[in-house]
Amino acid sequence: MDKVLLDYGSGGRASHRFVADLFFKYLGNDILARMDDAAVLSLTGPVAMSTDSFVVDPIFFPGGDIGSLAVHGTVNDVAMMGARPLFLTCGFILEEGLPMDDLARIVASMGQAAREAGVRIVAGDTKVVPRGAADKIFINTTGIGEIMVDPAPSGHRAAVGDVVIVSGSMGDHGLAILSTREGLSFEAPVVSDSACLAGIVGKLLAAVPGVHALRDPTRGGLATTLNEIAGQSNVGIELTQADIPIHPAVAGGCAVLGLDPLYLANEGKFLCIVPEDQAQAAQAAITAHPLGAGAKVIGRVVADHPGKVALVTPLGGKRLLGMLEGEQLPRIC
Amino acid sequence: MDKVLLDYGSGGRASHRFVADLFFKYLGNDILARMDDAAVLSLTGPVAMSTDSFVVDPIFFPGGDIGSLAVHGTVNDVAMMGARPLFLTCGFILEEGLPMDDLARIVASMGQAAREAGVRIVAGDTKVVPRGAADKIFINTTGIGEIMVDPAPSGHRAAVGDVVIVSGSMGDHGLAILSTREGLSFEAPVVSDSACLAGIVGKLLAAVPGVHALRDPTRGGLATTLNEIAGQSNVGIELTQADIPIHPAVAGGCAVLGLDPLYLANEGKFLCIVPEDQAQAAQAAITAHPLGAGAKVIGRVVADHPGKVALVTPLGGKRLLGMLEGEQLPRIC
Repeated sequence: MDKVLLDYGSGGRASHRFVADLFFKYLGNDILARMDDAAVLSLTGPVAMSTDSFVVDPIFFPGGDIGSLAVHGTVNDVAMMGARPLFLTCGFILEEGLPMDDLARIVASMGQAAREAGVRIVAGDTKVVPRGAADKIFINTTGIGEIMVDPAPSGHRAAVGDVVIVSGSMGDHGLAILSTREGLSFEAPVVSDSACLAGIVGKLLAAVPGVHALRDPTRGGLATTLNEIAGQSNVGIELTQADIPIHPAVAGGCAVLGLDPLYLANEGKFLCIVPEDQAQAAQAAITAHPLGAGAKVIGRVVADHPGKVALVTPLGGKRLLGMLEGEQLPRIC
Repeated sequence: MDKVLLDYGSGGRASHRFVADLFFKYLGNDILARMDDAAVLSLTGPVAMSTDSFVVDPIFFPGGDIGSLAVHGTVNDVAMMGARPLFLTCGFILEEGLPMDDLARIVASMGQAAREAGVRIVAGDTKVVPRGAADKIFINTTGIGEIMVDPAPSGHRAAVGDVVIVSGSMGDHGLAILSTREGLSFEAPVVSDSACLAGIVGKLLAAVPGVHALRDPTRGGLATTLNEIAGQSNVGIELTQADIPIHPAVAGGCAVLGLDPLYLANEGKFLCIVPEDQAQAAQAAITAHPLGAGAKVIGRVVADHPGKVALVTPLGGKRLLGMLEGEQLPRIC
């Protein structure tokens, strides 16, 4: 068959063949292969659990696709709690008529991303809805991992005097999706940064276990994520605009389109908030990893304006950087 | 606002307000309230993990709605591994324009179902897609629970001589959805059996820890589920048709529509396969619970026809009961 049929979601023989041919082939492991109602896992101590549904449009984009993004997105959320991601479940909602080649490419990409991230896909579910009831494919992933540090990093732990570091340039994923969807092209290609952050975060925590907060600035971008942390910890955050790394192509594209890269989603970057005396060690650990080569100290936690984020502009002015108000870009992840 | 807007899925201020007003109100607890990228949970020993996406149409039906169904479905899958369900994540995909009243009713129903099941919703995600890109609302739930018995029940453990028990009448959910969707009415109303099975399964396992297999016959119905177990354990299963409980209204509706209730989904029933010398104790434990009042011994595990399920008809004939072939009813759960 060259297209997804309603039969494939029935739970009957057609679904079983479909699951065996596709999901076991690309995602299989000994736990998934048992095919019971739930996977049996062995976990010890405190664990982190996170869920995300992915509805990105288009499903293929420069730097990734909905499959690898669905793995990276959830693995990264688990990693942000100072945890080593171990297990992932995936739930597919497929539109009748989705080309099988597209689906196979997506599932293969998920399998590769999972192997690279060191996680096993231990349970799954497939629903097929009639044509027009969904747009091509939606994927939910839920991840679980063992927390490596105590206390775990949290948005509630930012403290006055702490330093804010980002692992690289901001806005790449958001602009890559938008420009692909709208058929825009810029002088230099804009590529999503979609990547698994578990490895680099593991290195960081091994060097600096006392990291106060870790967060990946996805939907809403850096500005929204820092506003969340400022609110959770009831502190102010002050950023130096000139220090925030932004690819020239992203800066240029945003200028043309009237977008602010500080509100665009990232899918392979994180920010960390660390005590001042550990900032140098943290930056060294991050920049030593290929995914953190462009890391920068971009600001600090202050006692002023608790709950708010301020940006010091190149001319020395200061303005508040609010949370994203409405929706810049639907279906960005 | 009386309808879901794209802004609510942005990750920005509008999403935060939306999440606070709706999800925290109905689903809130101390873990969810921390609003970090992942929930921090404490688990010990072997755990069971399961995921399901719910795309049922219509979203409200006699006996439940997509919200309570999403809780019951996943909690039940976890319970079928002999586990006590503890934590649930939920991922919402909402269509722009969904009436807020409908969403609030669904989320309130999820909250009530979770409280009744004794599980906490510890992480969530909301995506909003433009009108036409999804049909009203899809919900993924992923659940985790601590396994109470060792070894855990599994479809691989059915053994020749074992007895097959079902906890009540077959096909209610499937026919309730179909008749609501198609606007059919029968003499007696047909109501979904959607319910949380964790309590009754806990009682069963306390009385009979040696249960070999537990399964809730959802998509594909009793026939498909037993075929799966026959295949996993490489045994035959023989059922006595006259002993399989079916509501007269369901039997009548199926006769009119040309459907077989043994292939229709159930959402509040389970089957167990137990050693013969423990069958009486198992049946007593099940029937003592309100959700198991209609439990029956319906067959046994045999050495004949391994991997297949046979049905002994009231006239004494025997026919093979295959797995569901195609799709009887899309969007049944």
